[in-house]
Amino acid sequence: MSTICAISTPYGSGGIAVIRVSGGDAVAICDTLFRGRKRLSEVKANSVCYGYVTRGVETLDEVVCSVFRAPHSFTGEDTVEIACHGSLYIQQTLVEWLIDAGCCAAQPGEFTRRAFANGRMDLTQAEAVADLIAAQSKAEKDLALSQLRGAVSSELASLRERLLKLTSLIELELDFADHEELEFADRGELTDLSDEIEHKLRSLMASFRSGNAIRHGIPVAIIGAPNVGKSTLLNALLGEQRAIVSDIQGTTRDTIEDTLVIDGILFRLTDTAGIRETDDVIEQMGVERSRQAAEKAQIIISVIDATQLRSESGASRGQVGGKSGVSRKQIETLADITSCDAEVITVLNKVDLLPDSDYRPMTDYIPLCAKSGDIEPLKKELVRVARSTMQTQAVMLSNARHYEAVTRAHKAIGSVQQGLRDGISGELLSLDLQDCLNALGEVTGQITNAEVLQNIFSKFCIGK
Amino acid sequence: MSTICAISTPYGSGGIAVIRVSGGDAVAICDTLFRGRKRLSEVKANSVCYGYVTRGVETLDEVVCSVFRAPHSFTGEDTVEIACHGSLYIQQTLVEWLIDAGCCAAQPGEFTRRAFANGRMDLTQAEAVADLIAAQSKAEKDLALSQLRGAVSSELASLRERLLKLTSLIELELDFADHEELEFADRGELTDLSDEIEHKLRSLMASFRSGNAIRHGIPVAIIGAPNVGKSTLLNALLGEQRAIVSDIQGTTRDTIEDTLVIDGILFRLTDTAGIRETDDVIEQMGVERSRQAAEKAQIIISVIDATQLRSESGASRGQVGGKSGVSRKQIETLADITSCDAEVITVLNKVDLLPDSDYRPMTDYIPLCAKSGDIEPLKKELVRVARSTMQTQAVMLSNARHYEAVTRAHKAIGSVQQGLRDGISGELLSLDLQDCLNALGEVTGQITNAEVLQNIFSKFCIGK
Repeated sequence: MSTICAISTPYGSGGIAVIRVSGGDAVAICDTLFRGRKRLSEVKANSVCYGYVTRGVETLDEVVCSVFRAPHSFTGEDTVEIACHGSLYIQQTLVEWLIDAGCCAAQPGEFTRRAFANGRMDLTQAEAVADLIAAQSKAEKDLALSQLRGAVSSELASLRERLLKLTSLIELELDFADHEELEFADRGELTDLSDEIEHKLRSLMASFRSGNAIRHGIPVAIIGAPNVGKSTLLNALLGEQRAIVSDIQGTTRDTIEDTLVIDGILFRLTDTAGIRETDDVIEQMGVERSRQAAEKAQIIISVIDATQLRSESGASRGQVGGKSGVSRKQIETLADITSCDAEVITVLNKVDLLPDSDYRPMTDYIPLCAKSGDIEPLKKELVRVARSTMQTQAVMLSNARHYEAVTRAHKAIGSVQQGLRDGISGELLSLDLQDCLNALGEVTGQITNAEVLQNIFSKFCIGK
Repeated sequence: MSTICAISTPYGSGGIAVIRVSGGDAVAICDTLFRGRKRLSEVKANSVCYGYVTRGVETLDEVVCSVFRAPHSFTGEDTVEIACHGSLYIQQTLVEWLIDAGCCAAQPGEFTRRAFANGRMDLTQAEAVADLIAAQSKAEKDLALSQLRGAVSSELASLRERLLKLTSLIELELDFADHEELEFADRGELTDLSDEIEHKLRSLMASFRSGNAIRHGIPVAIIGAPNVGKSTLLNALLGEQRAIVSDIQGTTRDTIEDTLVIDGILFRLTDTAGIRETDDVIEQMGVERSRQAAEKAQIIISVIDATQLRSESGASRGQVGGKSGVSRKQIETLADITSCDAEVITVLNKVDLLPDSDYRPMTDYIPLCAKSGDIEPLKKELVRVARSTMQTQAVMLSNARHYEAVTRAHKAIGSVQQGLRDGISGELLSLDLQDCLNALGEVTGQITNAEVLQNIFSKFCIGK
């Protein structure tokens, strides 16, 4: 296998950068460019050497090389990590020199792909490397790290192992098809194992919604009538001027998305156009998008303008915040929007504009002044609702590929259970068992296919 | 001294990131967070350890730590470099945990400042670290690396050493002021040394223009009448759509700057507004800026529109490219602009629009079609002119601070030479000698002042 090299640190200039070289010739190739007190081929594994990178009369940089030897490296191959000064020119030239000396430029994810190919990790662990690098929150990092440490794969692999044993016994029976009385595989044991697997797969499937929300952020839509302060609230949550705000109704047309981490939980906020009847075609499209965003949301922040409530409720002074203050039209619109199964947090905005006498705290509403930026109560409520809707368990699925394969495995094991109840033949049973084994094997990479691998690793960054 | 930490790799997410920890407690602090097969305090210097960063029940990441021990580290202090996954969340959390565990967040350049304070490098070398990181071209990298390896400082330090010896002898004479006949310092030797120093300083000062051009790029201004294709030429040189181009005269108003590396030489290109009489106030300001850019340039690319020449020259078909084709007005404007001491490369643009019969190659002009992007001849000429104008010598000044101090030292040594010729008293001589010693010492950092140091290191990136 060829020896590959790539810049492994983030793109740009900085104090130091690391170029990683991996493969059978890694040490020999680096030795052609490295001048230190010792040759890299002479130093012990896991040690660092100070020296210069030179070619002919030209010296490129002062570097520190870390030498790892197969199989005790990330990739399982001989590896040299060259820490150079973080100038873009130096980084790029060093990669050029390494390629001239015999390296190939690494493809995205190729180091991790080699780690997988060399048995240093299974496929879920390799995928976790990419997730870990992309982690933006504690929950996301925890999930990726647990997957990297083999939580998902070890659980599935051990179930698959046991299922494999029973399946081979059933297939053995088929070889002795003439002797119909033979049953190597204990049907009782198989039933118990199938039940156990079904239960485990169901629990993993159920964890996906939360796992996916952790990985991609919990979708939160901010909805409400025009000009109630939705964009101001978004800006306050993000702590920056992300959306354009004005007093003109219909200022926001496109849905605006951004992410926010509160207490280690990643939220994906969507600010939407105000919901109202309108003749403006672009605004109509915006309103339609609001509905779509609300449908996808797991949490909806419904914003109500305290001063509008007051003027609409007319006689009902002192009733602000009470349901009676909301116009029939608003109730209908909100009910329409919030009929999905999202959790709804209702925010009463612009309370600062109310005369003191009009304001009475209500438990159903969070009173706010988004403009002042004081939105701590809303943040706390977001975290509380997120925690209550998310199940957290030791092993969670966060990857759509895993979810798809686990769903297939679950369906197959369901057929096995049904077949056992119906007392179908070993031959038919074995087909469903194979489907289940394949699906489970695809998750961990025990069963691979080039296209799937290509698809997984092409999403990696280069250098990892 | 406190133990400091910072992210040393470029900002962003990537395969891996390196957090550097330096100071007396570096190993002990990292040991509170690191869980590996061995404690970091137990491993040998210059070795790498694989393990996890954990705090309480939380595991942050899988990491590889490199351990360096004082004085054999970049800073001269105990140092741990933690290579973690390059997620921004992980990088930032690791720094937070290190700070919670007793580290201080490093100031910009603080690692290098400590290397200087601990005698691992002198001041010119420390400054070279920042230059090396910023290097964009081979010439720039060569210059910084030679400075990092002590080329500037060793030369100045040895001259200063010899001068210091003679100066102390002269000052010794002053202590025996009653015995006027005493002359410890040989005036002949002092004259020779002064001459040598003066010669060396003069040569260093002369190298600054080239050194500065290497470091910051050779300033190149693109000038010409409106609509001759200056912006198109800039875009062709940069290989991207940097400047807005249109057929409307006066499209470019601001001067547009960008850098370009050809054959390892950094050029700093400025596209300017077309030079013409105009009533548009903004355009007038642009024309004024063109003049200023041309004045600062070391190379001027003067662009002439081949088709305009043709129409202006009227009867002179077949004379295109000949001086006769240029209108009187254009000649005056160009002469005015190019009266500075820059080298001028004249480009005849839009030659593709000429009928074949009209085109006759001329040695004074480079015929081009900037729109087609085929500008190799111009690039070659730029490199040739740059090489001919730049002196390259083993030791070059590229730093304005050094240039300023060397200029002061040169002036002082001139006074010493004059004083020796005039036979002035040792007392007066010693004042000039001290001035020279101080100025030289400032370059290498043997004489420091807190403000200068602050100024130097505050320009570094954090983490170096």
